[in-house]
Amino acid sequence: MLDTPDDVAETTSPRGDVAEMVGLHGFVQLAAFTRLATDAEHAPDLHAQVTISRMAAGELAGLDHLESVARGAGTDLYAAMAPYTTVLDDFDRRTPPGDWWERVVRTYVSYGVLADLQRLLSRAAAPDGRPMLDEVVADSGYEDFVVAMLGPVVAADPQLSARLALWGRRVVGEALGIAQRLLAEHPLLWSFTDRQGAAGRDGDDAAWLRKQLSAGHARRMDRLGLTA
Amino acid sequence: MLDTPDDVAETTSPRGDVAEMVGLHGFVQLAAFTRLATDAEHAPDLHAQVTISRMAAGELAGLDHLESVARGAGTDLYAAMAPYTTVLDDFDRRTPPGDWWERVVRTYVSYGVLADLQRLLSRAAAPDGRPMLDEVVADSGYEDFVVAMLGPVVAADPQLSARLALWGRRVVGEALGIAQRLLAEHPLLWSFTDRQGAAGRDGDDAAWLRKQLSAGHARRMDRLGLTA
Repeated sequence: MLDTPDDVAETTSPRGDVAEMVGLHGFVQLAAFTRLATDAEHAPDLHAQVTISRMAAGELAGLDHLESVARGAGTDLYAAMAPYTTVLDDFDRRTPPGDWWERVVRTYVSYGVLADLQRLLSRAAAPDGRPMLDEVVADSGYEDFVVAMLGPVVAADPQLSARLALWGRRVVGEALGIAQRLLAEHPLLWSFTDRQGAAGRDGDDAAWLRKQLSAGHARRMDRLGLTA
Repeated sequence: MLDTPDDVAETTSPRGDVAEMVGLHGFVQLAAFTRLATDAEHAPDLHAQVTISRMAAGELAGLDHLESVARGAGTDLYAAMAPYTTVLDDFDRRTPPGDWWERVVRTYVSYGVLADLQRLLSRAAAPDGRPMLDEVVADSGYEDFVVAMLGPVVAADPQLSARLALWGRRVVGEALGIAQRLLAEHPLLWSFTDRQGAAGRDGDDAAWLRKQLSAGHARRMDRLGLTA
């Protein structure tokens, strides 16, 4: 676990850790809504547009639960989300998709990394041992949808496959950078990973995070038939 | 009622009228989702962003019902929506909002006109007299939300009020034009209005439609404290 600087500990409320945690989850859910809704607008046909729009809508379902978790910890979800609102600005600037498939891969990769991060951060959420955020990190079906839509296209087009594999590597580099910055800037988040017992140095924590998230990414790329 | 040209009658299925009707409703619901989701991204604070995002998500709820109405008429909702997909392109090009409030007024005005059009077109939808599309045209709370958010701002700022009133007149002109074109290009839609019994000339129908939709618009502008 990263050492928590004294000044952070002193300026946060007793459940400042919960505020950082629900804020991150709320931000990721809202960001997923926004990005999927925008992707839907670019979809090449109405059926895909409606399907992705519905998945976008589904991302908001967890916010009610997060609001009540936030209230239970004496905090406000929207205040807790505020520190995260600019997290993806750099990512967006650095990864402008050139076409529909690059857009899909960008969302698939970054959504996957952030969802894995959410899962890592929900392990120790409930004091009684029960999972506190299962509802929020539930499978939206998005991964399966992309695999079904893009998998056959990639399999039939080696040139596209090579281009998207390269693109995926670029996107995941940016996404992993976001995840690392998030944990570095919000060190209280570490208390919600099962890494909290480890007595490692900072470098180990970052390496552990990268390894966890990279493994999930490699599995997702493999499902698409793309080289991670 | 507009005369249905023979060539249209011959090339449509027995329930081609239902296809035109569910297609329009499906298109409006999906367009409302897309526009509200985009508005949400521009919202000045997180609370407004989440509220508008949730309203966007709510717009998709009616699609399930429309899918089953379409199936019942032997048609497919997505095929039925296809002829409408470019309907708002001109509108978007002609009404680029200059700031957040112009964006809100643009959506408020066009959403209102299209929702009123949906209500006019759902009157005679069920053969047994029961309303067929109540679920789809249900009040989303968006109008009340905008009145609560923008009303006090307008009341406190005469200069903004004058600018938005002017902007509203420009937007409603474009929105009424869309509604008229929709009915002109999809004349079977007239059979779902309570205008179907009238033995008027074409001009009367267009004037009737304009009057109906203008009345709703004037009421909505009045609620905002803006001169229609």
